[in-house]
Amino acid sequence: MRTYPEAVQFHGHSCPGLAMGYRMTKAALDHFSFERAEDEELVAIVENDACGTDAVQFLSGCTFGKGNLIFKDHGKMVYTFYNRSSKKAIRISRPAEFREKLTDRDLSREEMIDWILSVSENEIVKIEEITIQEPKFARILKTVICEFCGETVTETRVHELDGKVICIPCFLKQNNK
Amino acid sequence: MRTYPEAVQFHGHSCPGLAMGYRMTKAALDHFSFERAEDEELVAIVENDACGTDAVQFLSGCTFGKGNLIFKDHGKMVYTFYNRSSKKAIRISRPAEFREKLTDRDLSREEMIDWILSVSENEIVKIEEITIQEPKFARILKTVICEFCGETVTETRVHELDGKVICIPCFLKQNNK
Repeated sequence: MRTYPEAVQFHGHSCPGLAMGYRMTKAALDHFSFERAEDEELVAIVENDACGTDAVQFLSGCTFGKGNLIFKDHGKMVYTFYNRSSKKAIRISRPAEFREKLTDRDLSREEMIDWILSVSENEIVKIEEITIQEPKFARILKTVICEFCGETVTETRVHELDGKVICIPCFLKQNNK
Repeated sequence: MRTYPEAVQFHGHSCPGLAMGYRMTKAALDHFSFERAEDEELVAIVENDACGTDAVQFLSGCTFGKGNLIFKDHGKMVYTFYNRSSKKAIRISRPAEFREKLTDRDLSREEMIDWILSVSENEIVKIEEITIQEPKFARILKTVICEFCGETVTETRVHELDGKVICIPCFLKQNNK
């Protein structure tokens, strides 16, 4: 399992959100006895794009560039992990009492990070086994050439203008003329 | 500068897309004499979410969870980097001849990766200095409690139902009843 200092190296700095994401992702991987996704064996559905999601990426291997990090813009620090081999899903959130405990303590930023990293798992992480539909695999799509700029584009992202293939940025430029 | 094998460790496997993203990001960082973003000093605008973007995240520190990775779903392997200290932007793409060179060679996957990693930079990376509006900083938003599930939610993501604050997943459940 990758360490918190290694996750900090990836994120760029240490912060309470990253520490929280570290504890939540570690709990998920431990629950599944899963090391790290080389490809799409594990899928993460994240409900915000805040600091903690960098811990999700770094620890679990569910990354923005691999198609196994699904973003649902709900503004919630909730991560759902789907294990393709066992076909099982878990929803990772924080117990309702967690927030009170954290605010009651009146901690500095550094103290908060230390507390998040050291408190027992059941105080800080809630794991629920849930049933979800298996997420689709990332598709490898064909590439075409934009006949306006000559650059390559994924075929599902082009428009057509005057019978010619056009990429979105060229299309936007044409419309702003 | 982080190495290609380290980027592979982050992405989970080696592939031509990651190698390409590695060369493009390295060229951008070298151009700016920039090491890596601890916070939001550097911003990357990526025009697809394919493998190469994991090299962008890993090398540049412009990550999904830090607010300095902006995704425009154009299906293009084009990365724009904005340096907040110099206020300069560069657009990184691949020269038009690159595609022909790559297909002409009829290489295996491994040979293709080796070629991408070893070819001279001007054959594989096109750098254009461009002018863009400075990207906004990520905002730290307040958190509220969903009165249906009791979980915390970013205030800009809630709805209201019967005068109560409701998060998107609870709202969707209510509408499916």
